Amino acid sequence: MKQMQEKILEEGTVLPGGVIKVGSFLNHCIDTTLLAECGREVARLFADDGITKILTIEASGIALAVAAGMEMGVPVVFAKKHKTSTLDGSAYAAEVRSFTYGATYDVQVGRECLKRGDRILLVDDFLANGHALRGLIAIAFQAGAEVVGAAVAIEKAFQGGGDALRAEGLRVEALASIEAITDDEVIFRS
Amino acid sequence: MKQMQEKILEEGTVLPGGVIKVGSFLNHCIDTTLLAECGREVARLFADDGITKILTIEASGIALAVAAGMEMGVPVVFAKKHKTSTLDGSAYAAEVRSFTYGATYDVQVGRECLKRGDRILLVDDFLANGHALRGLIAIAFQAGAEVVGAAVAIEKAFQGGGDALRAEGLRVEALASIEAITDDEVIFRS
Repeated sequence: MKQMQEKILEEGTVLPGGVIKVGSFLNHCIDTTLLAECGREVARLFADDGITKILTIEASGIALAVAAGMEMGVPVVFAKKHKTSTLDGSAYAAEVRSFTYGATYDVQVGRECLKRGDRILLVDDFLANGHALRGLIAIAFQAGAEVVGAAVAIEKAFQGGGDALRAEGLRVEALASIEAITDDEVIFRS
Repeated sequence: MKQMQEKILEEGTVLPGGVIKVGSFLNHCIDTTLLAECGREVARLFADDGITKILTIEASGIALAVAAGMEMGVPVVFAKKHKTSTLDGSAYAAEVRSFTYGATYDVQVGRECLKRGDRILLVDDFLANGHALRGLIAIAFQAGAEVVGAAVAIEKAFQGGGDALRAEGLRVEALASIEAITDDEVIFRS
């Protein structure tokens, strides 16, 4: 998606360790015009797939998930990273290791949110090593729901998580896929 | 807002300690049809106020903030509750005590996200004791931005946070305001 690539080139900054900072438009301050376009693009990509629910992970995945969910007319479920008094012990759970935060944590989804037979689209802001998506896949599996595909705003393809999931048969769509970062230059997969 | 009240009566459940569980449509599983209506209502309420930015707090505030922000055509900034490698030490910060989570934490907003002269609308899913909104007000103050008002999906008016803020001159709009909870009955402020 051209607008996302352009925005990354205009406003993204590369930090040490392969972290790309896109907080000025994607996951801290959100450009809602771009976000609405991204939501429409995700809806277009999965228009014929009978999606019944979008599953994402708090916090940065919620914005794109909501934009796509409103466009597609399906509910959005966001997995919680932290214990809360409103989730009981019966929730579906999986362990995720975050690249950006450098920590491992449990993600949880209440049993009432996912049903056997749901056709799930996974949505997130970033796809790096794929651990977050794998956590969501594990949760969907526990619920007996089918994961139809995944849509992410930015894939860091050089970290391999997206291609590993594709090799396992998952349809993974990235609005922008970064092949390499060299000397502050960002090279997109064509 | 009638639809929000009806949804609370249909699907909300009351937990011990005055916690209202609305995870089936608002802050875990999100009813995107209702959310879009809420976004339009927030946009209508603050249509004449020259809002330049929406400020919310991760994670549950993001959905309504994004729905309103897309409708109003303004960026959304969400304050972060957790340290991340993409926020440096210069961020604006405030301490917030969460009613639902029973914990105190720092919220942070990067300096590049808020500007002197910004006209800020605060958005959140719940307003109980008002600590989250006060944290966001402190952050806006640090940035030299003006807080024009606050819009929340559900106010628990019996906890007093909203009225205290109104008494201090802040315009606070709730899509549903709960006056009391008695024997599992939810009574709305009229």
